[in-house]
Amino acid sequence: MPVNYNLSASTSRPWTFIKLIFKWDGSVWKAIWMQYAVWLGFYFILSGYYRWIMDIDQKKTFAQIVDYTDRRLKYFPLSWMLGFFVAAVMARWKYLYNIIGWMDNTALIVAQYVRGTSERARMYRRQIVRHCMVTQALVFRDLSVRCRKRFPTLDTLVAAGILTQHEFDVFEEIQYRYARYWVPFQWAWAVSYNAWKEGLIEGAYYQQIVSDTIREFRTGLAWLCNYDWCPLPMVYPTIVCLSVHIYFLVAIVARQYVQESENFHIDLVFPFMTSFQFIFYMGWLKVGEAMLNPWGEDDDDFETNLLIDRNLTMSLKIVDEGYGKTPYLAKDTFWD
Amino acid sequence: MPVNYNLSASTSRPWTFIKLIFKWDGSVWKAIWMQYAVWLGFYFILSGYYRWIMDIDQKKTFAQIVDYTDRRLKYFPLSWMLGFFVAAVMARWKYLYNIIGWMDNTALIVAQYVRGTSERARMYRRQIVRHCMVTQALVFRDLSVRCRKRFPTLDTLVAAGILTQHEFDVFEEIQYRYARYWVPFQWAWAVSYNAWKEGLIEGAYYQQIVSDTIREFRTGLAWLCNYDWCPLPMVYPTIVCLSVHIYFLVAIVARQYVQESENFHIDLVFPFMTSFQFIFYMGWLKVGEAMLNPWGEDDDDFETNLLIDRNLTMSLKIVDEGYGKTPYLAKDTFWD
Amino acid sequence: MPVNYNLSASTSRPWTFIKLIFKWDGSVWKAIWMQYAVWLGFYFILSGYYRWIMDIDQKKTFAQIVDYTDRRLKYFPLSWMLGFFVAAVMARWKYLYNIIGWMDNTALIVAQYVRGTSERARMYRRQIVRHCMVTQALVFRDLSVRCRKRFPTLDTLVAAGILTQHEFDVFEEIQYRYARYWVPFQWAWAVSYNAWKEGLIEGAYYQQIVSDTIREFRTGLAWLCNYDWCPLPMVYPTIVCLSVHIYFLVAIVARQYVQESENFHIDLVFPFMTSFQFIFYMGWLKVGEAMLNPWGEDDDDFETNLLIDRNLTMSLKIVDEGYGKTPYLAKDTFWD
Amino acid sequence: MPVNYNLSASTSRPWTFIKLIFKWDGSVWKAIWMQYAVWLGFYFILSGYYRWIMDIDQKKTFAQIVDYTDRRLKYFPLSWMLGFFVAAVMARWKYLYNIIGWMDNTALIVAQYVRGTSERARMYRRQIVRHCMVTQALVFRDLSVRCRKRFPTLDTLVAAGILTQHEFDVFEEIQYRYARYWVPFQWAWAVSYNAWKEGLIEGAYYQQIVSDTIREFRTGLAWLCNYDWCPLPMVYPTIVCLSVHIYFLVAIVARQYVQESENFHIDLVFPFMTSFQFIFYMGWLKVGEAMLNPWGEDDDDFETNLLIDRNLTMSLKIVDEGYGKTPYLAKDTFWD
Amino acid sequence: MPVNYNLSASTSRPWTFIKLIFKWDGSVWKAIWMQYAVWLGFYFILSGYYRWIMDIDQKKTFAQIVDYTDRRLKYFPLSWMLGFFVAAVMARWKYLYNIIGWMDNTALIVAQYVRGTSERARMYRRQIVRHCMVTQALVFRDLSVRCRKRFPTLDTLVAAGILTQHEFDVFEEIQYRYARYWVPFQWAWAVSYNAWKEGLIEGAYYQQIVSDTIREFRTGLAWLCNYDWCPLPMVYPTIVCLSVHIYFLVAIVARQYVQESENFHIDLVFPFMTSFQFIFYMGWLKVGEAMLNPWGEDDDDFETNLLIDRNLTMSLKIVDEGYGKTPYLAKDTFWD
Repeated sequence: MPVNYNLSASTSRPWTFIKLIFKWDGSVWKAIWMQYAVWLGFYFILSGYYRWIMDIDQKKTFAQIVDYTDRRLKYFPLSWMLGFFVAAVMARWKYLYNIIGWMDNTALIVAQYVRGTSERARMYRRQIVRHCMVTQALVFRDLSVRCRKRFPTLDTLVAAGILTQHEFDVFEEIQYRYARYWVPFQWAWAVSYNAWKEGLIEGAYYQQIVSDTIREFRTGLAWLCNYDWCPLPMVYPTIVCLSVHIYFLVAIVARQYVQESENFHIDLVFPFMTSFQFIFYMGWLKVGEAMLNPWGEDDDDFETNLLIDRNLTMSLKIVDEGYGKTPYLAKDTFWD
Repeated sequence: MPVNYNLSASTSRPWTFIKLIFKWDGSVWKAIWMQYAVWLGFYFILSGYYRWIMDIDQKKTFAQIVDYTDRRLKYFPLSWMLGFFVAAVMARWKYLYNIIGWMDNTALIVAQYVRGTSERARMYRRQIVRHCMVTQALVFRDLSVRCRKRFPTLDTLVAAGILTQHEFDVFEEIQYRYARYWVPFQWAWAVSYNAWKEGLIEGAYYQQIVSDTIREFRTGLAWLCNYDWCPLPMVYPTIVCLSVHIYFLVAIVARQYVQESENFHIDLVFPFMTSFQFIFYMGWLKVGEAMLNPWGEDDDDFETNLLIDRNLTMSLKIVDEGYGKTPYLAKDTFWD
Repeated sequence: MPVNYNLSASTSRPWTFIKLIFKWDGSVWKAIWMQYAVWLGFYFILSGYYRWIMDIDQKKTFAQIVDYTDRRLKYFPLSWMLGFFVAAVMARWKYLYNIIGWMDNTALIVAQYVRGTSERARMYRRQIVRHCMVTQALVFRDLSVRCRKRFPTLDTLVAAGILTQHEFDVFEEIQYRYARYWVPFQWAWAVSYNAWKEGLIEGAYYQQIVSDTIREFRTGLAWLCNYDWCPLPMVYPTIVCLSVHIYFLVAIVARQYVQESENFHIDLVFPFMTSFQFIFYMGWLKVGEAMLNPWGEDDDDFETNLLIDRNLTMSLKIVDEGYGKTPYLAKDTFWD
Repeated sequence: MPVNYNLSASTSRPWTFIKLIFKWDGSVWKAIWMQYAVWLGFYFILSGYYRWIMDIDQKKTFAQIVDYTDRRLKYFPLSWMLGFFVAAVMARWKYLYNIIGWMDNTALIVAQYVRGTSERARMYRRQIVRHCMVTQALVFRDLSVRCRKRFPTLDTLVAAGILTQHEFDVFEEIQYRYARYWVPFQWAWAVSYNAWKEGLIEGAYYQQIVSDTIREFRTGLAWLCNYDWCPLPMVYPTIVCLSVHIYFLVAIVARQYVQESENFHIDLVFPFMTSFQFIFYMGWLKVGEAMLNPWGEDDDDFETNLLIDRNLTMSLKIVDEGYGKTPYLAKDTFWD
Repeated sequence: MPVNYNLSASTSRPWTFIKLIFKWDGSVWKAIWMQYAVWLGFYFILSGYYRWIMDIDQKKTFAQIVDYTDRRLKYFPLSWMLGFFVAAVMARWKYLYNIIGWMDNTALIVAQYVRGTSERARMYRRQIVRHCMVTQALVFRDLSVRCRKRFPTLDTLVAAGILTQHEFDVFEEIQYRYARYWVPFQWAWAVSYNAWKEGLIEGAYYQQIVSDTIREFRTGLAWLCNYDWCPLPMVYPTIVCLSVHIYFLVAIVARQYVQESENFHIDLVFPFMTSFQFIFYMGWLKVGEAMLNPWGEDDDDFETNLLIDRNLTMSLKIVDEGYGKTPYLAKDTFWD
């Protein structure tokens, strides 16, 4: 999950965001330092070459090249591209985060409508929420680098207790060329249907509510996959990324301090203003890159493993320990 | 809650918004005066140094630096960044405000479907809405600085009457490493289920409506937490804030009145135009900062304590005093 | 309601929008003429001062000031600010319009499910829709300047027949420090519940549909209040308004025809181009101002009184006169 | 309906959109040729006047005016205005298109739940969908120029078979000052309620589904009217249109080839670049104008008559001929 | 479907997107190479003509034309147009992708509520999902070039097993001038109704859930057609495409290295900077073109055939093989 800076940013003071600048994790510095170092290296190599190796004629020609490129850097519509691109990517990121799958509602509804404190009732409740978790683990394994590392094979799901051995065998019986994410979900539904048949869910309408909350959870996971199958057309991020990089490649030449140049004012050796520009544009691009695919191992990417643990623990807690622990009815303090 | 200026802005006259300019609370002046004072201080220190301490050669060099930086300030894409950033932040702010949690619908539906004027029925109605309020107080404590100050420990919730001592004990029985926001919500649901079982809710379908309105309320609160867990990638606000600040840092040099400079027209001593620019850009940035995390103590931040008081008072009023106070059926004035 | 220009704009011809320019109500001319007149006055006072009173030295200094300011007017990011600001305000305006409250669906559903032509059934139907109207009138009184003028006190609602005297007394019994908008709504719901109990609504499910449509109506009104409580952070409109006004304040100096200025081409006396600019930017700002708070008395503001009249008349018509007037079943013209 | 160019644009090749340029219907050429011709006329009149009638002094003054205006054309923020304006208008256009009213779902649900092949059942089904169509015709008559021409009076609806004479009489009985769109809709609902009472709809829940799909259809039509009543504040399109037109009005002067001008390079007689600019900006404006009110007779406006015919034919086909024509149950090809 | 680059982009490293640059399928290079080659050809022809054929006077005139055009290229608002256009097109593309039709939910719900392992129950389940697939195949045939090539006639659907011969005959009985997409959908609904009548669906409410999920699937497909019928007004893509192409057409002249030009710095023969500009703007335009109509055969267009195969296989698998394969109830690993 993205680095949390809410507490330090909740009340806006002049120095609120200044402080953020000195963080490292999830910061712009961490995101761009390597690229900046390489860029600066090339800049100084060319700078040294100009200062110590070129003769006067070469310097003149070089100044012409500098003037030529510097004047034409405005051909690059970086600001527009980055503005619209980051807005598009952020909309997508928010959508993905919205459907990533929180078990709370599902578990609470299962605990509400699957009634009884018998062992069988408890098994029903636990099985429904656990089957939902299996699908989430399966989907996250295929999307997220972090989750794939945690569960390299399906066996590991059994070892982690998310899947029982028997369930794993049933799962493996179904073999065909497309995804099998729907299998545990079908189990969850069938189990809830059986609970109704056995009378643990007291009404067809209640059964439907349980099915519906499972469906909502599943639909979110399904769209995670669908959006993974069909990302933004590749040309869009490529073109934006290319623009920014070529801009600064050209800037290595165009922003040299060259006395023979038209735009020359003073030789400060270090390219201050272009460095600032590098930080802003490259950092802005990183915002887009980081949100374009949030399934990796960046500081700001989704913490899939954390979410699986939280979901599993919390939903078992809700359906089992939380069930039937209601305080007795009493008059509250404001009772007149 | 944001400073309310609606009444003074409802009819658009030439001087409508001019008047807003002379307010202090929630104004741009209050937001930026400190930064502006510091900036102006630095500006005049440099200005004095240039006027009284530098010799002619130094002044020439200084003029070159001024020209160099002034020409290159256009490298900073402030307008694009701020425009897109504020739009993104505002969308988020609106979403948070939409799910912040108003008890009205929940309370009205509870009052509609939990029937009876017996003490038991009243206890049912009051308990359901109060349990919802507990969750809201718990969530606001963790998000909002103001609410945390009001309820520093869970005990204070008991003291405030939101939670009874018995409920607090039940709540404390459940201990594990993740959030326990769901507990009072599970109570509310269980209570409504019992009300149906006792016949106070006259139909399974009606019970479901009550559960559903509670669920809606809870889902909003849950997403408040989810969005707090996973804010905008930190790089985005940092990069925008950094751009604005470095821009004006450079402007301290670039916007000096320097007679030797290319751009020199007249020496007005005070940097009028740059001051205006400072106000607009810094004020624009403040719009974004204030809305980025609305849980603090800014003038425009959400008044969580006020909302809790209002919700608690209003919902108890609705389910208790409002119940059964319906005017008798009568012919209205337009009856022919 | 906004001035309606749809008929004149439905088919796009070259002169379609040209015609709109010559309208007065709701036009840009009406919105800005006063400010433009004041601005022009100041412009010509300064112009006269420059032409007839300044000596040559003063003129030279003045020309330097003109050059200084004119060059730096580009510091103002008006276009970006206005573009994003108006987009944000328009989104809000559309949302408010969507929830402003049209009784049609509510009335039609009441007429559909509360059955019978007896006087009692008619009273039920009329009472439900009238109670909804009471809430709308209460809310509009607090939001809209126009509606407040029409109903300065609650008594006037009784006089207008929206509320009966008995209902007014019941309403006044409930006194506490927060809003009482929910009271008539609770009546409407209770009445529909009673109608079900008496068998006038033939099924619990149908009762729920009636309650639900009332809820939808109420939720819209509630959000009108919520959004009034918590408007856009005040800094945003202030900063935009301030930018535009200071821009043109500076322009009074910067855009003078001054022969000694660098930019001087010809002395046309009247500031044609700056006037155009004034019209466009100030008009654009007015779009935002007019939509920011649509509860006033501008030409384009919501016609709350008209809407109350329409809703009341139409909904009584629907539930009473429209009930049971169904044409008999017959073969239509296309019957083979 | 907009001119359909999908087939020619489905696969993106270099010449895909080039081909679109040579179309006439719905093209930019058709949209702007008249304005362009007028503009060009004025341009050449002024050009001729400058070349053949002005003396040298006049030419000098004229050159100064040209320089003055050309330099200040950048005061017009056309790109920002058009960008944001067209985006706002397009959002509105999409919304209108989404609620314009397609009968398919309504007809299919009526055919699903109103059971029986008796003449009475058929009459029920046909009557419900036809009554919905009446409302659509009534609404389109008031919004769309095309539809108004087709049905100038209500009698013509009877002649067209959409309304029977008896229904027309019932409709005319209700007379008051507001719209009567709800009348046929109330019929449709009452008819469906009767069908349930007669047992042709087998369950209260199914009756509700039928009512609900009618409601959805009606709500769309109602919002078409609401949005027609309350369009975008008139200032917005006026100001955008005005900006573009005044820009090119000024450009008639500012873009003359004047040898005495500062910006003069070569006399090409025909204003090539300004013509391109005219096409792009005016064409962009036309995109906005065409979508601002899609109820006219433009090439890209909604084909209301076509939609009424399609809806009527298709829905009668569905509820009548389509009913009960289900293929028998059989094993499919993939049966193992 | 768009080329998938998620795996290579999941973790953001400096070289992440650099790698994407060297791909060919779905890349910017593939999209624009042909246009770039043609453009470069024209550029060098003109360049050669200027260098070797023009005499001095012609060169002078040519330089004037170059200066004239180069100065006025800024008249083209490419960045604004492309930014807003691509944003609009992307919103539309996302909407289409959202409603393209995934059978998962439908199949799972059919498998949940149509009970029994008898051959008849299996036939019911298979028939419902297969009928949905028929509609999808019919719609895709009319929209997508790829799908039309696969199923050139309706007979081929029978051959492919999507439709049985008997169903095809029933389908062919209905003949009229509008689309017949609703026919198989009406079958699916009728079949589900019959299943309820036969008791295979255990409750009217469950039957409604099945109908509803089919309706959702159908509504998506219907809107695919509706949006195909009524695309973005043609002027919009034309004007954007025209702007970009004319810009570079003019640039062939304006960006020549001409020693007599005002802007001349150095003769690099190859137009480096303009080539970069060509790549960025034309690539940006391609993003819009590719998403404007995603039904073609571009690398990034929707893989309709793949989707049909996946849907058919998966949904038959779900309703048939997946049915009744639920693991037995057991205590999980975390059972205390």
